[in-house]
Amino acid sequence: MKKLINGVGTILTESLDGFAAAHAGLVTLGPERKYLRRVKLEPGKVALVSGGGSGHEPLHIGFVGHGMLDAACPGQVFTSPTPDQIFAAAEATDTGAGVLFIVKNYEGDRMNFAMARELSGQESEIVVIADDVAVMNSPRTTGRRGVAGTMVVTKIVGAAAERGMTLAALKALGERVNGVTRSMGVALTSCTVPAAGKPTFVVGGDEMEMGVGIHGEAGRQRMKLKTADEIAGELVNTIAGDLGARGDALLLVNGFGATPAMELYLMFNSARTQLARHGITVRRALVGNYVTSLDMAGCSITVTLLDSQLEQLWDSAVLTPALRWGV
Amino acid sequence: MKKLINGVGTILTESLDGFAAAHAGLVTLGPERKYLRRVKLEPGKVALVSGGGSGHEPLHIGFVGHGMLDAACPGQVFTSPTPDQIFAAAEATDTGAGVLFIVKNYEGDRMNFAMARELSGQESEIVVIADDVAVMNSPRTTGRRGVAGTMVVTKIVGAAAERGMTLAALKALGERVNGVTRSMGVALTSCTVPAAGKPTFVVGGDEMEMGVGIHGEAGRQRMKLKTADEIAGELVNTIAGDLGARGDALLLVNGFGATPAMELYLMFNSARTQLARHGITVRRALVGNYVTSLDMAGCSITVTLLDSQLEQLWDSAVLTPALRWGV
Repeated sequence: MKKLINGVGTILTESLDGFAAAHAGLVTLGPERKYLRRVKLEPGKVALVSGGGSGHEPLHIGFVGHGMLDAACPGQVFTSPTPDQIFAAAEATDTGAGVLFIVKNYEGDRMNFAMARELSGQESEIVVIADDVAVMNSPRTTGRRGVAGTMVVTKIVGAAAERGMTLAALKALGERVNGVTRSMGVALTSCTVPAAGKPTFVVGGDEMEMGVGIHGEAGRQRMKLKTADEIAGELVNTIAGDLGARGDALLLVNGFGATPAMELYLMFNSARTQLARHGITVRRALVGNYVTSLDMAGCSITVTLLDSQLEQLWDSAVLTPALRWGV
Repeated sequence: MKKLINGVGTILTESLDGFAAAHAGLVTLGPERKYLRRVKLEPGKVALVSGGGSGHEPLHIGFVGHGMLDAACPGQVFTSPTPDQIFAAAEATDTGAGVLFIVKNYEGDRMNFAMARELSGQESEIVVIADDVAVMNSPRTTGRRGVAGTMVVTKIVGAAAERGMTLAALKALGERVNGVTRSMGVALTSCTVPAAGKPTFVVGGDEMEMGVGIHGEAGRQRMKLKTADEIAGELVNTIAGDLGARGDALLLVNGFGATPAMELYLMFNSARTQLARHGITVRRALVGNYVTSLDMAGCSITVTLLDSQLEQLWDSAVLTPALRWGV
């Protein structure tokens, strides 16, 4: 295992300290590093709290700030944050309008966010993200996995929260965006979890894992490496087929952590062309490392169908460590 | 070689088409993809034109836009753009105030930018970036290599150009920023140039290349992998020793393409702490993949000493595909 670390036990704390120092104007670490929250809260706004295992950066901590999250709880690598962390984050950011939890669909995350809600007397709701069309169930989930679509839901719901939308309406909006969002990924190499010290899975020198999860979970099929157009075609066909609708869309080509930008933009070029053949027109684009899997090579494609409301909310001002525009 | 490509011959064109489509509101491709330029030029402003081999994205194309470059010329992977490309970019962006070329210190780049200047009858100047303290000369350079400091110089000079600074003053400013900027990098793995099809260099499973260049050029020493604190210490000591000054600084921790964000923030945390011991206080921070080497794992540290002028220019509004704030 080759990593820029001092020891397996201190990776998360040292990294969080660096993150908080680098973005001190925007975010601040809570006591015992339980959460990262905005420096400045908006009184009367519904608080948005998310979190999950670390190792997917910038998700979730990079999306704390105006227009997205009020707080994010970082678990250990690929491990859910504890109910205690989530409870503390909600307590620290609720200004009276309630709390919306944005949770990826994994058993551990769902259980811990649910326990945090029980601990708390706050008014709260949960939106569960389940956008990965690759597999129906997995070792970590009942139902679809929550992957890169999480950042799209967070951006759109976050913008609506800034505009004063109520808790119930935000939950409904989040579920609506989740319902028009589909993702699927492919891995060329495995990630290596520091505590494990070796690759999560083994993939041959001429192979790829089609439909991989963001923790290196098995996908649909181990197969020979294909061309970018063939790979994008399989991802796009699955996504478009599952969506079963035409129209305008946001296309996110997300790197898993070790894929050069040149390849991501090449995949974007291929995917947008192939989506057009399905009657899906790319109106908004995002290309880069947003929901990663440590040092895994590969990428995912996420498509969200847009109407004028969702497009406006996507375009709204955002000021976070990892995403910023319009301010 | 495992890459998301259709073939070695079309990587650059397909990637550029994707890039231009993804950022259509900001940049546009010139004829025959010779350059990427801003959609909207500012009449009367000195034009800033840069470029170099591709494979370092987002450098340079990701820095085209308000507050940074007017145009960037992408060469083939790790290969200088041609004089013809550079000439065309300068012609397309000069609105009468002259052209400043920002060039990394490599023989090929310097020769081709110089030839472009000779072809052109425009008023122009060149700023050469040479910030890498790892080695004195290299197979590709006489003098220090130009690496991640290039984006710092581009940001600061770009802000000054927006404020109406003259060509001669911009050249002097660029040289001043270069003079207070130092970088040094470390690689844990090699990059693989697509046309070569195999890793540029071989590094053992427990080794690193200290002082590596951004094309995978040999550095100072092949050595056993050390802790993050030890690695950051060696980079910081070399940089601070060479700077030979105390004061406020910008610290850029730059990923080479395959390094997880968690590790980069951990390195940032270590570097800022160790810089403080040299009397260098980190006032501005940037952490992420900005000047990459395809799929190389590792990072570089760049320190630029700041005075109030440089700090104000760094903070000025910027709106490019890869860097945006204040707008």
